[in-house]
Amino acid sequence: MAQQKKMVEAITSMETDFAKWYTDVVVKAELCEYSSVRGCIVFRPYGYAIWENIQKILDERFKATGHQNVYMPMLIPESLLQKEKDHVVGFAPECAWVTMGGEDTLTERLCVRPTSETLFCEHFAHVIHSYRDLPMLYNQWCSVMRWEKTTRPFLRTSEFLWQEGHTMHETAEEAVNETLQMLNIYADFCEDSLAIPVLKGEKTPKEKFAGAEATYTIEAMMHNGVALQSGTSHFFGDGFARAFNIQFTGRDNKLAYPFQTSWGVSTRLIGGIIMTHGDDNGLVLPPAIAPIQLVIIPIAQHKEGVLEKAKEVFEKVKPIARVKLDDSDNSPGWKFSEYEMKGVPLRLELGPKDIEKNQCVLVRRDTREKIVVSLDELETAIPQALQAVHDGLYEKALENRKNRTWDAHNWEEFQSIAAEKSGFIRAMWCGDEACEDKIKDETGLKSRCIPFGEEPVGETCVCCGRPAKKLVYWGRQY
Amino acid sequence: MAQQKKMVEAITSMETDFAKWYTDVVVKAELCEYSSVRGCIVFRPYGYAIWENIQKILDERFKATGHQNVYMPMLIPESLLQKEKDHVVGFAPECAWVTMGGEDTLTERLCVRPTSETLFCEHFAHVIHSYRDLPMLYNQWCSVMRWEKTTRPFLRTSEFLWQEGHTMHETAEEAVNETLQMLNIYADFCEDSLAIPVLKGEKTPKEKFAGAEATYTIEAMMHNGVALQSGTSHFFGDGFARAFNIQFTGRDNKLAYPFQTSWGVSTRLIGGIIMTHGDDNGLVLPPAIAPIQLVIIPIAQHKEGVLEKAKEVFEKVKPIARVKLDDSDNSPGWKFSEYEMKGVPLRLELGPKDIEKNQCVLVRRDTREKIVVSLDELETAIPQALQAVHDGLYEKALENRKNRTWDAHNWEEFQSIAAEKSGFIRAMWCGDEACEDKIKDETGLKSRCIPFGEEPVGETCVCCGRPAKKLVYWGRQY
Repeated sequence: MAQQKKMVEAITSMETDFAKWYTDVVVKAELCEYSSVRGCIVFRPYGYAIWENIQKILDERFKATGHQNVYMPMLIPESLLQKEKDHVVGFAPECAWVTMGGEDTLTERLCVRPTSETLFCEHFAHVIHSYRDLPMLYNQWCSVMRWEKTTRPFLRTSEFLWQEGHTMHETAEEAVNETLQMLNIYADFCEDSLAIPVLKGEKTPKEKFAGAEATYTIEAMMHNGVALQSGTSHFFGDGFARAFNIQFTGRDNKLAYPFQTSWGVSTRLIGGIIMTHGDDNGLVLPPAIAPIQLVIIPIAQHKEGVLEKAKEVFEKVKPIARVKLDDSDNSPGWKFSEYEMKGVPLRLELGPKDIEKNQCVLVRRDTREKIVVSLDELETAIPQALQAVHDGLYEKALENRKNRTWDAHNWEEFQSIAAEKSGFIRAMWCGDEACEDKIKDETGLKSRCIPFGEEPVGETCVCCGRPAKKLVYWGRQY
Repeated sequence: MAQQKKMVEAITSMETDFAKWYTDVVVKAELCEYSSVRGCIVFRPYGYAIWENIQKILDERFKATGHQNVYMPMLIPESLLQKEKDHVVGFAPECAWVTMGGEDTLTERLCVRPTSETLFCEHFAHVIHSYRDLPMLYNQWCSVMRWEKTTRPFLRTSEFLWQEGHTMHETAEEAVNETLQMLNIYADFCEDSLAIPVLKGEKTPKEKFAGAEATYTIEAMMHNGVALQSGTSHFFGDGFARAFNIQFTGRDNKLAYPFQTSWGVSTRLIGGIIMTHGDDNGLVLPPAIAPIQLVIIPIAQHKEGVLEKAKEVFEKVKPIARVKLDDSDNSPGWKFSEYEMKGVPLRLELGPKDIEKNQCVLVRRDTREKIVVSLDELETAIPQALQAVHDGLYEKALENRKNRTWDAHNWEEFQSIAAEKSGFIRAMWCGDEACEDKIKDETGLKSRCIPFGEEPVGETCVCCGRPAKKLVYWGRQY
């Protein structure tokens, strides 16, 4: 127990210092490590395995909806980046620039891709000729680089891993449908696989992606009430197509510009998982993406028959869950603490007395609830318990969001909630960027989104009092 | 048939101009496209799908042998690259350098990783403390950048995709075993999955990886007799460990330096597949990595019942092979030509007369052999036919290598074979780099490897006539 105590003491409590708790968890759970490259992290095996599980689920969903993977160069010539004017203004300030190749200074500098719209457009211009080539539904898994001033593991790093979908369509309507389809895939993934409830909505013009006509977003709320933009999906109209001269011969035999989308989620989702579900004992992982879903810990393993039985149980469970048997020399208490820190959703304890009764004890990571289960019923009990952990995590996160969401009907109310509470404020907005700026400057809250399908909470702008039709969620953000 | 003729005419014959044939195939089969970034290509869906299949098979083999995936930063500070002196000499001349971040000139320039030994070593120094932490068996899938002067799609590009394994071990013996284990995994993969026979052997000191104590290689021979180094596995001794001060407490409680390996294969394997198996009708893909293993082409598809039956067959075959049904309006002849260009291993033709007889026609891409098969026997006939294509490709490639391998016993013989033939020359070598240089300068042939387990072909160096114990394969290379 001394070791266990030491381990738990090693992380800061969430209530004491949420930021410190977060960095303690990412290090102690061995998700990542700092590198000597400014703002870049090393993804350690346990952290990378979470990303591989995320990739696997999303990649299947992308392919099931007709998308194909491709790979574009990691460098973008400056002249190519400049072709779409809003886009370059948005991204140039945070580009890392390659200016030398071997011993030679380059005649044109190249940026390490911060996103790949320009490369995809150059390619689309070569391969799209006719309406028969459309829709073109591409996705790319890669790393991107944005020269950030302040960084935090997973949430904001100079380099991060992501996927970026890029599609081209015959009509604007079809492209908008694609944009929303992918937003829904992201939202379903967050809820079904990560147990993270998300708001779906549209970004205000000020918060749109550089070069987009409309940006849709899923917004999650972290345990401390701070928002995390967890995925975005953009409708570009034909703006990039015109800038890159991408044209196709339509069904009417006339040349036309296609309509474009792009959409992405990144390794910041790992940060979202940590901050949505974690607690003072460490990480808590949703079962769908947990590298280890169940850890078997033998009790009094030196006693005859315990390890043999544990191995038997391991073999039985292997086909139905990602399972690990820890038969190392560490004490059970040390192991409990270790796998709690690593957020393993279920622990299976098996000792001599359990074996006598042909049973074991399942312990949920989220609630620590213990269930005694017959060894003959593991095949049904384990999937049920994993589902219960998932459902429990989701409900708790949803409850937290409900408890931390307030309506503000006037400016005083808005200011007082912003000053006293941490969470989302729902308030009406006139649509004027000046009001959005004032809210940001005076309260630190930014617009999260104009939510889909929610009723207005008033008729006038919370900031200026003029008539307002748009309901907006406001919040602090990572 | 006019369309078919046109399509075939569109590629240069191998005999006329092998290099032109190669670039015609990569473009016409839609594997890749050129980009505006010097020496970088766009991996199109069909080319990238081949890489995904390669990744899937190798990743399973790596994990089955205890390796874990991680991800290191894509940039390396110059001071880190310089820590191991041979390594920096080897790689610095071909690095792309980031010198600016946003608007700011960096105080230290960063290279886009050409390989990641230095980053792994920096990390190992942080996480290796005790013999209990060893072996540490890591792998990374990523892209790397080497500023090449002349480039050719897949074979030599400034950016390429690869995997790099990096491992640390308690003893030199264990590290050497790992080096050879991974070489064997590569060799088995080439033979079992790519149908490419490879030579296994050790590189001469001159051809070793920068910083390695020993480099092992698998060497394949392309259809035209030119060699392709297809994978390498390096034993580093403890050289990097000393340079990076990586130490662990041993079983004897004393500090020691661990022993290191690294190993990699890259997207140049796709180039190897093209040049080993392709023909004048285009690509020929080994079934294990073909994105489409079988294409179903309905004949007279406007006739009643043909498309229905084709769909029925498609559903039947789906669980056992990656299958595509092409029911587009193009003529059967156009389709035959298209999927031959794309190297699809098997074609299934199904017309009204076949349907009457409850049969179909399977056509092998490699031999064009036709087999009439009962529709009731597809589940056995298709896997058999795919295996037959694999075996046929492998045998043909092995035959080509045998026919293009010669023994040279003296300098005149060596020179005359080198001048008249294209392929491998087996000849004895004294071990002196001066002889290796002379052979290169006078014949253009470089040492491929000192092969494992082959008998000497003489007792004296083919170049200088002094006593020689080492048999070496020599050849031109990509």
